[in-house]
Amino acid sequence: MKNILSTFLLSIFICSGLFAQELKSPNGNLTMTFTLLNDGAPTYQLNYKNKQIVKSSKLGLELKNDKKSLLNDFTIADTKTTSFDESWSPVWGEVKTIRNHYNELAITLNQKESNRQIIIRFRLFNDGLGFRYEFPTQKNLTYFVIKEEKTQFAMAGDHTAYWLAGDYDTQEYDYTTSKLSEIRALNAKAVTANLSQKPFSQTGVQTSLMMKSADGIYINLHEAALINYPAMHLNLDDQNMIFQSWLTPDMKGDKGYMQAPSTTPWRTVMVSDDAREILASKMIYNLNEPNKIKETSWIKPTKYVGVWWEMITGKSSWAYTDDYPSVELGKTDFTKAKPNGKHGANTANVKKYIDFAAQHGFDAVLVEGWNIGWEDWYGNSKDYVFDFVTPYPDFNVTEIRDYAKGKGVKMMMHHETSSSVRNYERHLDTAYKFMKANGYDAVKSGYVGDILPRGENHYSQWIINHYQYALEQAAKYKIMVNAHEAVRPTGIARTYPNLLGNESARGTEYQAFGGSKPNHVTILPFTRLQGGPMDYTPGIFEMDISKINPSNNSHVNSTLANQLALYLTMYSPLQMAADLPENYNRFPDAFQFIKDVAVDWDDSKYIEAEPGQYVTVARKAKNTGQWFLGSVNGETVRISTIKLDFLEAGKKYTATIYADAKDAHYKTNPQAYTIRKVVVTNKSKLAQFCAVGGGYAISFVENK
Amino acid sequence: MKNILSTFLLSIFICSGLFAQELKSPNGNLTMTFTLLNDGAPTYQLNYKNKQIVKSSKLGLELKNDKKSLLNDFTIADTKTTSFDESWSPVWGEVKTIRNHYNELAITLNQKESNRQIIIRFRLFNDGLGFRYEFPTQKNLTYFVIKEEKTQFAMAGDHTAYWLAGDYDTQEYDYTTSKLSEIRALNAKAVTANLSQKPFSQTGVQTSLMMKSADGIYINLHEAALINYPAMHLNLDDQNMIFQSWLTPDMKGDKGYMQAPSTTPWRTVMVSDDAREILASKMIYNLNEPNKIKETSWIKPTKYVGVWWEMITGKSSWAYTDDYPSVELGKTDFTKAKPNGKHGANTANVKKYIDFAAQHGFDAVLVEGWNIGWEDWYGNSKDYVFDFVTPYPDFNVTEIRDYAKGKGVKMMMHHETSSSVRNYERHLDTAYKFMKANGYDAVKSGYVGDILPRGENHYSQWIINHYQYALEQAAKYKIMVNAHEAVRPTGIARTYPNLLGNESARGTEYQAFGGSKPNHVTILPFTRLQGGPMDYTPGIFEMDISKINPSNNSHVNSTLANQLALYLTMYSPLQMAADLPENYNRFPDAFQFIKDVAVDWDDSKYIEAEPGQYVTVARKAKNTGQWFLGSVNGETVRISTIKLDFLEAGKKYTATIYADAKDAHYKTNPQAYTIRKVVVTNKSKLAQFCAVGGGYAISFVENK
Repeated sequence: MKNILSTFLLSIFICSGLFAQELKSPNGNLTMTFTLLNDGAPTYQLNYKNKQIVKSSKLGLELKNDKKSLLNDFTIADTKTTSFDESWSPVWGEVKTIRNHYNELAITLNQKESNRQIIIRFRLFNDGLGFRYEFPTQKNLTYFVIKEEKTQFAMAGDHTAYWLAGDYDTQEYDYTTSKLSEIRALNAKAVTANLSQKPFSQTGVQTSLMMKSADGIYINLHEAALINYPAMHLNLDDQNMIFQSWLTPDMKGDKGYMQAPSTTPWRTVMVSDDAREILASKMIYNLNEPNKIKETSWIKPTKYVGVWWEMITGKSSWAYTDDYPSVELGKTDFTKAKPNGKHGANTANVKKYIDFAAQHGFDAVLVEGWNIGWEDWYGNSKDYVFDFVTPYPDFNVTEIRDYAKGKGVKMMMHHETSSSVRNYERHLDTAYKFMKANGYDAVKSGYVGDILPRGENHYSQWIINHYQYALEQAAKYKIMVNAHEAVRPTGIARTYPNLLGNESARGTEYQAFGGSKPNHVTILPFTRLQGGPMDYTPGIFEMDISKINPSNNSHVNSTLANQLALYLTMYSPLQMAADLPENYNRFPDAFQFIKDVAVDWDDSKYIEAEPGQYVTVARKAKNTGQWFLGSVNGETVRISTIKLDFLEAGKKYTATIYADAKDAHYKTNPQAYTIRKVVVTNKSKLAQFCAVGGGYAISFVENK
Repeated sequence: MKNILSTFLLSIFICSGLFAQELKSPNGNLTMTFTLLNDGAPTYQLNYKNKQIVKSSKLGLELKNDKKSLLNDFTIADTKTTSFDESWSPVWGEVKTIRNHYNELAITLNQKESNRQIIIRFRLFNDGLGFRYEFPTQKNLTYFVIKEEKTQFAMAGDHTAYWLAGDYDTQEYDYTTSKLSEIRALNAKAVTANLSQKPFSQTGVQTSLMMKSADGIYINLHEAALINYPAMHLNLDDQNMIFQSWLTPDMKGDKGYMQAPSTTPWRTVMVSDDAREILASKMIYNLNEPNKIKETSWIKPTKYVGVWWEMITGKSSWAYTDDYPSVELGKTDFTKAKPNGKHGANTANVKKYIDFAAQHGFDAVLVEGWNIGWEDWYGNSKDYVFDFVTPYPDFNVTEIRDYAKGKGVKMMMHHETSSSVRNYERHLDTAYKFMKANGYDAVKSGYVGDILPRGENHYSQWIINHYQYALEQAAKYKIMVNAHEAVRPTGIARTYPNLLGNESARGTEYQAFGGSKPNHVTILPFTRLQGGPMDYTPGIFEMDISKINPSNNSHVNSTLANQLALYLTMYSPLQMAADLPENYNRFPDAFQFIKDVAVDWDDSKYIEAEPGQYVTVARKAKNTGQWFLGSVNGETVRISTIKLDFLEAGKKYTATIYADAKDAHYKTNPQAYTIRKVVVTNKSKLAQFCAVGGGYAISFVENK
């Protein structure tokens, strides 16, 4: 019946001079209509429950040195509709099983004059639309250069948006919440100082972009499977509320170098009238290729501590000495240098962290600043900045290796590249081999500062290719990667599950650099967490940074209870207890939650959510089956009223509830928390007070 | 005495408000005077036998984002004069022993306002001047960016110059001979089409630049020890005949990224009233660091043949198939492709070359086109273009390895990078390992086409760094490198003698691409060969290329005798007999010379030379002590009248003289040659006819 109807509609449209074809989601709520205009320009639109979400929007690509480009003058050569419905199990994740269920429409377009073909493939899920361009093997389209992709997302109203200024080099701005029409005026304020940045338009924004319409529809724009292509930003025509794709250029201003056969990444439009469905969506993973790593037992979700926060706060230094104005690796003799007395990564200190990790059941210890080169690592555009294998005189690699092993704790490697990308690639094999030889199976990599080769950007095709290369090489060595300052993820961890995480957004460190907005963590799950987990490194118990470093007056804009909740609301297979051990030792009862919480899940239930305001989620741990819950709150006090109906029927649980005290406030009284135990069942309800910038966390233990 | 005199002069100049210091060459013919102007700008000038060669010329560097730069406002902090006189033996070369004999003046300059220091170090040899800038370790100068180097070479007249248009990406233009004042008008014509080029100024020229003054002084400008710095070109102010250094920029337009302590390369000014001394000069090697490779027995001068000319002429193809519009390494299945029937690098053909090499005593066989990727290797800005290890289906690596070994012949590897530099570095270790596993000890590398990362230039600091990296990595594997299209050499083979050669100029292949000027090879020794040998690949016996490939009407603008002479006049430890075996088989008597000629020398005597006209040189082979002589002629018929006084007194020799026939002409009758045997002694003279584009070659055998 559906096919007959489609064909009928098809006939009508062909007669009227337009070609149009419709695609529906499995549950029928979403309808995508593809229309070929009179001039042969391809367009699409998207409705949700009969409301217009994406108005008629153009598709296509502008090519370099090409009279025609791939924008119009198309005819339909073929259309294919298919359906797909399979489930798959991620190696790690929020849930045990993910259903991949969509209806697909693949339209083959022929450009008459140039005699070339492209395919636009649409996949419509219950939670949204994905589509991409494909360039099949053919005589008249082999190598071509994209000057700009011209994919539009015409919004149906002046929505509220939770946005970051578009930028070729950083994602670390604080979120701005405003109407789309206000982006232009607020742009200058949104672009705060960063160690590497290149904004490009007063109405440019990054993805994933979260929006909410006046009538309560949630919309998210992003991309999936960003491989061998530049990252997509969106530029807003704020007269007409039309977003258009704006790709990251290379040094010459070209956007993408393409060879057929190939595809672009998927452009994704998530839609729901229920914010929780946005958070729970697995569409971006579903659009990625299945897992390519055959044997995955070496990929392990990890809870860790580390020699890091003491440097971020300025209490210690990554650098070993202040003696040298500059360093030449291989020439500078650090054994002759006078230690500055503040070097965090020294053997004794590291052993303390190993002891702490072993005592409290953490899997691993990260150490930053262990390797020579930190004295002049930043701001010098230095090419040969690190070698990734030579420790400082006070960091004994083998002693630490053996000590950690004896305590049953893994060491986590740190590769700050200083964005000297060629240098990193030159040392990659040696660095990975060094890791394996010394007991390191996971590496946190960083790309702080402007990229070398100079002139390139963090999110250009050339550098996207590097992140992928480093990841695939790591897989050969059975190494897990946590890439900071790299491009924000787009679901590639389905294909390469050794990509355990990225930062690629404004993380906890910014709380020591002046602070983030208290509702920052109520936006991140809607935006940054689409596409992959974030190594947010939560768990800060001391909010007044001057207590750690008197010269640093920064304040962590979060209550302690909010910090506990982050282990649930900021889903990540890598979770750090980021504060100093001494601060955990001051609050052992609260710390108990961090010790108990799992990092890998069989199931997750988003209970309540509103971007910029609150997120509450419950998760069931893999293996133990134990439930945990976390709720983060934004800028207004609230009572979180929830049902505990995710619990198993017929069972009793002791819920340990870590919450804000009545007088808690992220700024004035962040460490005021309460811990209470309540016996609950799946019929129980909870009305929990949440402070400004606060929240609560619960661990459930079955009463047997 | 000298010191007292210097101090006296010093006092005089200090009193007069200028600082000046003089430096003389060991034999006193050259005098360099350093003068600090009133505004603290450093200058130098150079006299030769009391004639002004370099008039007062400024020194200094313009820095980026630096109010002061390093141009003036200097005072003298220190001067040091020293002398040096040592001899060293190159691993291979024109001579067994090289004398390094100079007087040195190191001037430490302090810039008052910025409180920073630079050193300008001058070394004055009997054959010329070298000087460089040094940036010592200091507080106020650590990291800095050079916007432009402002080293001047003020010429004393409107000299005749033998020049190539300055270009960031190619050295393959034909030489133009003209007055300096004519460069501007002739520039457009001088910039002919090339696969990768970027000229930058109508009066820009490359180095080394050869000149001759009206009163018969020969001057050569070049640089030595180009490491971690951009290549220097010269831009002419043709009102005042002042050359100024013009460095190769990176993609952002910056020239050099520097970290103190460091030095620039040496800028060299060779001077003589005898052209032969310019050819014989070893100054550029002497300015380089001594050999860093401890064990050098694996570095071997090599005479070779190869599967190459048949592709250059278009008779065969590098590519294996015409089936595929484009290739994806690792995906494209070549076993399923229809061979195009013209693939030169097939096992049977290679074996023929191995047989030929074995039969005629050649050391090695080069094979190009053996590895997958040649179908779309050029012009597509392709990133993953070659993997350097996967052969085509018709090239059996192990069979060829064993066959060559059995015949006592080495195989020479080919790594065309297609200028995809990151891709080459990613595969470098694997490629070098593959070589060693399969019997290859030497590699010809190539950088055809525009560089990737896109926007970089062949001679920028970033890519200079790459050539050096590939060379040093090769040394770790005991691999010899012959880098084509790389930066022209600057004596680095003293430090890394595994750099057996470069092309980096217009080589023999251009004779099949339309031809080169018939006097091209009478200029190259003065220009390109300063700084290192050239893999010129001579030995073409069939000048009419249409006889090899009817579609190619190119003509080799050289007589056969001239081709033989090139084995002497184009000094190189790597010498190819480049033509097809069948062409050698047609002229076995002439071919005998190529078979006999050595490639490594104990001694060399330049007998007569005039840039653009003729070069005659005799060389004494290492080990055998056998003498050979070669003479190349330019565009006018001449009689080469020489003495054979380089021969040993009291001995008789049979000289086999391969010469142009009386009616030979490079265009109309190139293959007309004579061979005669004459008994000679060191008292003998020779008056030898040379055709247009002709020459002669002699092998001497001692009559025992």
